[in-house]
Amino acid sequence: MALLESAAVGEGSRIWAFSHVLPGARIGRDANICDHVFIENDVEVGDRVTIKCGVQLWDGVRIEDDVFVGPNVTFSNDPFPRSKQRPETFVQTRVRQGASIGSGATLRPGVTIGARALVMDGAVVSRDVPPNAIVAGNPAHITGYVDTPHVDLPGQVSSATRAVALPADSLPQLSVARATLHRLPKIVDLRGALSFGEIGSHLPFQPQRFFMVYDVPSREVRGEHAHRACHQFLVCVKGSVGIVVDDGQHRDEILLDSARLGLHIPPMVWGIQYQFSPDAVLLVLASDTYSAEDYIRNYDEFLAAVKEAKAAAGAQA
Amino acid sequence: MALLESAAVGEGSRIWAFSHVLPGARIGRDANICDHVFIENDVEVGDRVTIKCGVQLWDGVRIEDDVFVGPNVTFSNDPFPRSKQRPETFVQTRVRQGASIGSGATLRPGVTIGARALVMDGAVVSRDVPPNAIVAGNPAHITGYVDTPHVDLPGQVSSATRAVALPADSLPQLSVARATLHRLPKIVDLRGALSFGEIGSHLPFQPQRFFMVYDVPSREVRGEHAHRACHQFLVCVKGSVGIVVDDGQHRDEILLDSARLGLHIPPMVWGIQYQFSPDAVLLVLASDTYSAEDYIRNYDEFLAAVKEAKAAAGAQA
Amino acid sequence: MALLESAAVGEGSRIWAFSHVLPGARIGRDANICDHVFIENDVEVGDRVTIKCGVQLWDGVRIEDDVFVGPNVTFSNDPFPRSKQRPETFVQTRVRQGASIGSGATLRPGVTIGARALVMDGAVVSRDVPPNAIVAGNPAHITGYVDTPHVDLPGQVSSATRAVALPADSLPQLSVARATLHRLPKIVDLRGALSFGEIGSHLPFQPQRFFMVYDVPSREVRGEHAHRACHQFLVCVKGSVGIVVDDGQHRDEILLDSARLGLHIPPMVWGIQYQFSPDAVLLVLASDTYSAEDYIRNYDEFLAAVKEAKAAAGAQA
Amino acid sequence: MALLESAAVGEGSRIWAFSHVLPGARIGRDANICDHVFIENDVEVGDRVTIKCGVQLWDGVRIEDDVFVGPNVTFSNDPFPRSKQRPETFVQTRVRQGASIGSGATLRPGVTIGARALVMDGAVVSRDVPPNAIVAGNPAHITGYVDTPHVDLPGQVSSATRAVALPADSLPQLSVARATLHRLPKIVDLRGALSFGEIGSHLPFQPQRFFMVYDVPSREVRGEHAHRACHQFLVCVKGSVGIVVDDGQHRDEILLDSARLGLHIPPMVWGIQYQFSPDAVLLVLASDTYSAEDYIRNYDEFLAAVKEAKAAAGAQA
Amino acid sequence: MALLESAAVGEGSRIWAFSHVLPGARIGRDANICDHVFIENDVEVGDRVTIKCGVQLWDGVRIEDDVFVGPNVTFSNDPFPRSKQRPETFVQTRVRQGASIGSGATLRPGVTIGARALVMDGAVVSRDVPPNAIVAGNPAHITGYVDTPHVDLPGQVSSATRAVALPADSLPQLSVARATLHRLPKIVDLRGALSFGEIGSHLPFQPQRFFMVYDVPSREVRGEHAHRACHQFLVCVKGSVGIVVDDGQHRDEILLDSARLGLHIPPMVWGIQYQFSPDAVLLVLASDTYSAEDYIRNYDEFLAAVKEAKAAAGAQA
Amino acid sequence: MALLESAAVGEGSRIWAFSHVLPGARIGRDANICDHVFIENDVEVGDRVTIKCGVQLWDGVRIEDDVFVGPNVTFSNDPFPRSKQRPETFVQTRVRQGASIGSGATLRPGVTIGARALVMDGAVVSRDVPPNAIVAGNPAHITGYVDTPHVDLPGQVSSATRAVALPADSLPQLSVARATLHRLPKIVDLRGALSFGEIGSHLPFQPQRFFMVYDVPSREVRGEHAHRACHQFLVCVKGSVGIVVDDGQHRDEILLDSARLGLHIPPMVWGIQYQFSPDAVLLVLASDTYSAEDYIRNYDEFLAAVKEAKAAAGAQA
Repeated sequence: MALLESAAVGEGSRIWAFSHVLPGARIGRDANICDHVFIENDVEVGDRVTIKCGVQLWDGVRIEDDVFVGPNVTFSNDPFPRSKQRPETFVQTRVRQGASIGSGATLRPGVTIGARALVMDGAVVSRDVPPNAIVAGNPAHITGYVDTPHVDLPGQVSSATRAVALPADSLPQLSVARATLHRLPKIVDLRGALSFGEIGSHLPFQPQRFFMVYDVPSREVRGEHAHRACHQFLVCVKGSVGIVVDDGQHRDEILLDSARLGLHIPPMVWGIQYQFSPDAVLLVLASDTYSAEDYIRNYDEFLAAVKEAKAAAGAQA
Repeated sequence: MALLESAAVGEGSRIWAFSHVLPGARIGRDANICDHVFIENDVEVGDRVTIKCGVQLWDGVRIEDDVFVGPNVTFSNDPFPRSKQRPETFVQTRVRQGASIGSGATLRPGVTIGARALVMDGAVVSRDVPPNAIVAGNPAHITGYVDTPHVDLPGQVSSATRAVALPADSLPQLSVARATLHRLPKIVDLRGALSFGEIGSHLPFQPQRFFMVYDVPSREVRGEHAHRACHQFLVCVKGSVGIVVDDGQHRDEILLDSARLGLHIPPMVWGIQYQFSPDAVLLVLASDTYSAEDYIRNYDEFLAAVKEAKAAAGAQA
Repeated sequence: MALLESAAVGEGSRIWAFSHVLPGARIGRDANICDHVFIENDVEVGDRVTIKCGVQLWDGVRIEDDVFVGPNVTFSNDPFPRSKQRPETFVQTRVRQGASIGSGATLRPGVTIGARALVMDGAVVSRDVPPNAIVAGNPAHITGYVDTPHVDLPGQVSSATRAVALPADSLPQLSVARATLHRLPKIVDLRGALSFGEIGSHLPFQPQRFFMVYDVPSREVRGEHAHRACHQFLVCVKGSVGIVVDDGQHRDEILLDSARLGLHIPPMVWGIQYQFSPDAVLLVLASDTYSAEDYIRNYDEFLAAVKEAKAAAGAQA
Repeated sequence: MALLESAAVGEGSRIWAFSHVLPGARIGRDANICDHVFIENDVEVGDRVTIKCGVQLWDGVRIEDDVFVGPNVTFSNDPFPRSKQRPETFVQTRVRQGASIGSGATLRPGVTIGARALVMDGAVVSRDVPPNAIVAGNPAHITGYVDTPHVDLPGQVSSATRAVALPADSLPQLSVARATLHRLPKIVDLRGALSFGEIGSHLPFQPQRFFMVYDVPSREVRGEHAHRACHQFLVCVKGSVGIVVDDGQHRDEILLDSARLGLHIPPMVWGIQYQFSPDAVLLVLASDTYSAEDYIRNYDEFLAAVKEAKAAAGAQA
Repeated sequence: MALLESAAVGEGSRIWAFSHVLPGARIGRDANICDHVFIENDVEVGDRVTIKCGVQLWDGVRIEDDVFVGPNVTFSNDPFPRSKQRPETFVQTRVRQGASIGSGATLRPGVTIGARALVMDGAVVSRDVPPNAIVAGNPAHITGYVDTPHVDLPGQVSSATRAVALPADSLPQLSVARATLHRLPKIVDLRGALSFGEIGSHLPFQPQRFFMVYDVPSREVRGEHAHRACHQFLVCVKGSVGIVVDDGQHRDEILLDSARLGLHIPPMVWGIQYQFSPDAVLLVLASDTYSAEDYIRNYDEFLAAVKEAKAAAGAQA
Repeated sequence: MALLESAAVGEGSRIWAFSHVLPGARIGRDANICDHVFIENDVEVGDRVTIKCGVQLWDGVRIEDDVFVGPNVTFSNDPFPRSKQRPETFVQTRVRQGASIGSGATLRPGVTIGARALVMDGAVVSRDVPPNAIVAGNPAHITGYVDTPHVDLPGQVSSATRAVALPADSLPQLSVARATLHRLPKIVDLRGALSFGEIGSHLPFQPQRFFMVYDVPSREVRGEHAHRACHQFLVCVKGSVGIVVDDGQHRDEILLDSARLGLHIPPMVWGIQYQFSPDAVLLVLASDTYSAEDYIRNYDEFLAAVKEAKAAAGAQA
């Protein structure tokens, strides 16, 4: 009961009832195309992909290996037909390796869902989703990262549920071993509060640059990148911000919510800032002056550089 | 044009074009399964159920009698495949008797939609929906209860549209006849405001326990239950809170928004607290000390107890 | 593979695989009905309409010419079956000429989507959408107007990205040539701030009426209309508000966010106020006393009046 | 026991024990100079003045007739000796006819206390006090006006204590008969609130100028003056402001605290604005374009002009 | 060098230079009247009183035994001469036994300074000062009570300076031994916070009345009184309030700032409520219904009743 | 008419009528003691001091050279007699060289008024006053510094009244020539605002330490000191703060109110921070790690070090 017009369907793949695959579509091995699916011509579907019922894949859609697309997920094909405000240019919508699209989610044309990302049921995705991110809502926003433990800090709500409280002055070891948390001194008297850090005690490098992030209008991601050589030291002076650190192997999420807390992000650690509270003021000290070449802004490139560095280290050993 | 592989379809039920029912599915009488529907094996559909077009019912879905499922409603089958954060355990999604799921709504796997509840169009439901509740939004939240009149109180906005204004000091009779509203004295002078109540005038019982509810972080439901023997007296000192009272036959919704307003909830009346304003402080006086056995926390159990009580009363008469 | 039961399908129209059109449906010319579509009997579809996959058109749906309906868009047919709270009356859902409904959007029964309006992907529309409006979200709200440039004003964020900054005191010419922006004096001293305008300097007419708009509870549209004879002068004293002006041919959107900025809207220009900030106070001066006849509140009527006026002017020339 | 070195002391005046009057001082009739008073040379004291114990009158002090100076009131003689920030110029401190200075008050050098004004006990006066004003605090601020009834408006707190409530829509007649209060229409619906007024209904003149007062940093007096020919119409759109109107014979104080309330101040009525709430926005419509000559900014000049106008009117009659 | 016209000066009293005492004044024993003091006729000064330099005591002033009046303290004699707003009636200003008036303070005519109260330097007192209260500022407000230790509670700022921290769950013994602090359970979960108390565990009596105090407009005293028979149990649900308890012999001040803290005030303990935070909500449960006779509202009367009770107890023993 | 019992009165000093000087008092040359003054025994008054009428100097008061004490200024002698809360220890009240005490001011026992400081009329001083500070109010707080011009910055309110506006990007030269203002870049985009500075462009030194000042509870002075060797760079990221810089010869006051503004304070410049807005966040970068020896916290010591440095420099030249 299916209309299979394409010959490019990999071994082990199944096409279910009432589905329709146009001649130009290419489908990998061991894919599972359920009932009532429609697949246009300029479409590529990878190996081990599941497309549940009621989904359409339009020209320009690229589904990489090991992706799951839930039932009634909607891809958009035409970007705003007839509106002069948007270009009618042909766009590619891409779901990267290992990502999952939850039931009933909608994807705007042209977005990329990052590798291993998780789109929650019913989410309406209008911007690219970073690798490993979890998104939900309409419009979709990032609510967390997959396989990323929230670091339990003394005094924070999450730690209230721990069986054994951390000693008030100890700070936990992170999974990303090279990134470190630092307790900063804080002096409170009748004149107010004062926190500080200095070289030799709390600051693991000598800063050559500082910047402050503030007036962030939403809780959306503000930025993510790694540095090749530059160290950074983050303190959230007011409000709070979530930081994810990632060395290519492990990830940690830390809620910076106290001026007494410093976070050292060394080179070759991917850092993500998001979930700024409305009043957040984030201070960043950097070990080097600005250099565009020092930034790695693409996560794939970051993973490749990590691999390369490890290989080089192995060769040396 | 339909693929009907199951034999367990009740009398009077219709399966429309391009639908597909797998062998293990069981469908009751007088059900209506519209075009482009897909029904897996471990699925039960009750009597007089309507499933509109574009819906899939996955293994584990249970649809009780008299349910309506709108077009393109999406049930989720796999709970987050491939994410290590969530268990891959098999889950049941259940829509209880008489509930309605609006067009384009999405249900997370494992949720239960309570009896006679109403899921509005486009809602994304990620938590259980209590009986009789109306939910909307992404994520869905409770906006009201079906067949539950908002009680019109003097001075409240809703009463502004009434043709005939209530006298300022009178309080209406509730549909739930045993629950009663009480006007408390309020004295305002230069030193501030003072409200009070006492035995013999405003308090219908002598309290042995008090509790205060506050710092409620959202407008979501806070709790719902009935007592077998305990009386309660509620006053919202600051802000406002919506209270639904339900004696198994009638329901009323009251907006407590004044320290001058007391609500007496006698035993065997189901009470729901929700839509707390951010600054709400709710005082509850109780006629008895705490006893876990006195609480009925399950609505079905409550209805059974009401029935039983009525039968007992009838037997006595 | 389609079930076409109706004979009333216009020349050049195509019905794709697995679709089902009931006998009473009427479809215009050059329409494109994609896979897995269901069309009931009491449905009218205009010329050059596209209905993408997974859409159902229920009894009572009217789709005018040149409409685009994206994939998995959900129309609702029954307004809240079985709930006693809502009438079961039969309702018409109408999509006016040239409108686009984005992928995965949901439309409550009975709404009208205005001509050339744009419903964004995943929007849940529960109220009528005005002509030319862009709506998004759950529930959907207006986010802008199609083909309407945002006017770049000195000091506003949008102008920060311009290559060439505007001189601080110059104000741009609008596309709607008869509407004009005016710079007002502002004096700040120890007693506070004072803005003023007077005849001959800043006010292009002598006001006979004033009104103030304030306490607007949301960022939704507040009102839209044109005047036949009356001039208006708008100043946003506190906060900000978005104004769209439209002469039937061009549109501009202006953010009034300074007490130093006045906007003159002459007769026969359609004006829309929306996106009020919570603290906004908008002052409007009008050249004439109130006259109900002077208001045009229907946009179609406005376009007709513009056309008529132009014809009259042409006849005179 | 007193040292009386001056001969210029009027008939009926008494100088008490341990007081000291230098030769140049001049004191009027029926004055009462109590114990421990010191009076320098360049000092003038009017008729019927009381100077209580512990007061010094320095060179440059002028006390007009009928003034009361309480015990331990402190006049300053040197304006900030040795500070280069302030001129060492000789200054006159003047207490105008009929004013009272409460016990323990302090007056900065050079201030003028207006006729009939009342300085409360312990006040520290660093700026001129307008005629009839009551001042208190450190620094002193205006708290009211002598012999000025607060106009009782429906819905305001002050009227809550009245035995007989005013009908909700009536507005009281003012003592200053030519100034009038006007009820403005207010329309509240789901889109917010709207108040307006127009020529012929609520606006007693056709405005040629408007100004808005806002961001007033304190509750101090903002301004006071009269117009010779110009009419003004005041509406407080947000917050509240106290207005005193004065026709030279009567005074009223009105709390403008609602956008439904307009106040018409005709020519030749003295108007005072003070006690702005922090969020106050005051709109003023004026019948004429700005003309410096139209303003009377001096209260004595205003009283003279009122008298002259009355005389002219009498001559005509 | 002094003018002593009165013969009614007690043994051991001294009158210093340049002072002036009129014939009608009566002065007790061992008083000390310093330089430049003026004392009118209708004045009574008790034993062991000190009047420092530069003070005047006007007709109507009553100074009880053991009072200290600092230098340049100003009493007012005429209440607002010549203002029609205030009555010219003769008033008594009274300083009760053991009170101290700080240097440069000013007292409005007619106020009473309670026994042992302390008026801080420079305060401007315009209302009665309760017994034992400390007042400061212009206008003066209560800042504390003499000889009243602030009870150190775990978690409060004041306790941060203690050498030895209290165990988090222990509550201190009060000096007023019969009043007791109680720790109430508080349960916080995602639904908000809930505090409660019940008979047998936290509530030392069975309530017959409750009242709530809120919307207190300032930090001034709200009320003070004792009960003859009624018990009270106080919980501050929101914000904070200072409570002073006093059994006639000892005093304690407790900052109620947590819904986990209950204070039991038994009969025959004087209780003062003051320094309400703007958002404070104070719940009071009472053991008896309202009875005007049960209230002792005068502190002298309270001390007498305590004495009497003690005598009765002694007689019994 | 004066009682002069002391012989220790310097040449050229005058004692006026009704004054009283006890035997132990010592008074310098060319002092001026006006009428109705009382001076106890353990008192020292310097050269060229003026004590105006109605003042008492109690045991323990020390008045240095060139001080002015206005009329009715009140010194306190007994610190809280009879209150057990405060020690009865004997205290010294000291007015340092060149200070002025305004009329009617009150000084708590034991305070020190710094050299050249200015106490405004009616101030009630309960804490030490720093050198050069101007204080006012009850209780007294710092409102400015004598001989300290407010630096006029583009965009600040004070500059609005200048005849010639500063070019928007130029920054003025300070009187304290070694301290300098710097314009920092600020980038605003959809993600928020970002300000930064880096070595070589905006930062005149390489920081080794940073600290952040925040949560300052009042507008009072927060701190003042100089560094011997350390450079500091201040940026006010949020809100505003007043900074006074002082090189011993000149002073400037700068309002830091923009994240675009940096202030460099070099070594041997005294710096004062005060008048923090409630939301102020002040970032300070320092050139050296913390060293207690590098701080000069006493202003006299600072002046001595400046002098010494100058002498050393002169010796070198």
